[in-house]
Order: sequence, then structure tokens, then C-alpha cells
Amino acid sequence: MNLIDLLGYFGAFLSAITFMPQVWLAWKTKSVGDLSIWMILIVITSCVVWLVYAVNVKSGPVLAANLIVLALSLLLFYFKLTFKKPK
Amino acid sequence: MNLIDLLGYFGAFLSAITFMPQVWLAWKTKSVGDLSIWMILIVITSCVVWLVYAVNVKSGPVLAANLIVLALSLLLFYFKLTFKKPK
Repeated sequence: MNLIDLLGYFGAFLSAITFMPQVWLAWKTKSVGDLSIWMILIVITSCVVWLVYAVNVKSGPVLAANLIVLALSLLLFYFKLTFKKPK
Repeated sequence: MNLIDLLGYFGAFLSAITFMPQVWLAWKTKSVGDLSIWMILIVITSCVVWLVYAVNVKSGPVLAANLIVLALSLLLFYFKLTFKKPK
């Protein structure tokens, strides 16, 4: 594996963990009013598209990264539906 | 261009516009308290990594998508620093 491949894997790793601190903050505060539901829906849609792409081009890193992001964005979507905004 | 390439471009397009509704919501409400600063910092870092990767593998779609995401995440970072949390 050369340096550029490594860079790609590092990028995929960072992209995969992007929503971890956001899920943690939302869970801790039970507050998601400032999160855009459209952002979450676009992320879910893009993950599905990337997963189909990854299976077809047989890319393990893209598959793994998007499975993690899909799980985290579904969690954010669930939080968005269940945590009530304070009045 | 085959169907799989098209899917990749569609995924890159969706990934590029992910933060547009979030930037819009933050700008409209001037409220970013529920946004994780760590999420924003990870996105900025991953964009830089992906940009270096894209230049090296000469991937136009990866370059374009990450330039857009970088601009939007820098905006969110600026909002996060300047919009005050209501007490």
C-alpha cells in the first residue's frame, strides 16, 4: 500500500467517524433543534447510493465507511423524531 | 459513462450538498448550540485529506465535492464561533 492509498483510507476513516461526536452530543443533551432534518435525510440517501456503488465496484473502505455513517445518521434521524424541542 | 459511474457522481453530488440545509438553518436561526464542534472539525480535516488524495489520484468529482463541503464546513465553524448560545 502506498502513501496515497493510506491517505484514502485515512479520509474514509475520518468520514466514517464524522457523526460520532454529533450523536454523542445529541444523546447527552437530548437536544437536536439546531440539527437540519434535511442534512440528515441527504446523508441517509447518499449512504444508500454509496453502498450500492461500493458493492458494485467492490470497494471495502467505501462500504465500511458508509455502513458506519448510515448507522449514525439513522440514529440522528431517530433522535430528531423523538427528542422534543424545548419551548 | 456507465450506470455505476453515474451512481458515483450522484453520491458525490449528494455528499457535496449535505451541509447546505445545515448552513441555511444555522444562518436563519442564528442558533448552533446543538451542533458538535468536533463533527465540524472532523469534516474540515477529512476534506483536507480528501483534497490531497483527489489531486494525487486526479479525481475531479472527489475534488469538487470536497471543495464544496470544505467551504460549507468552514462556514459552520465560523457560525459556531460567532453565534452565541441563548442562556
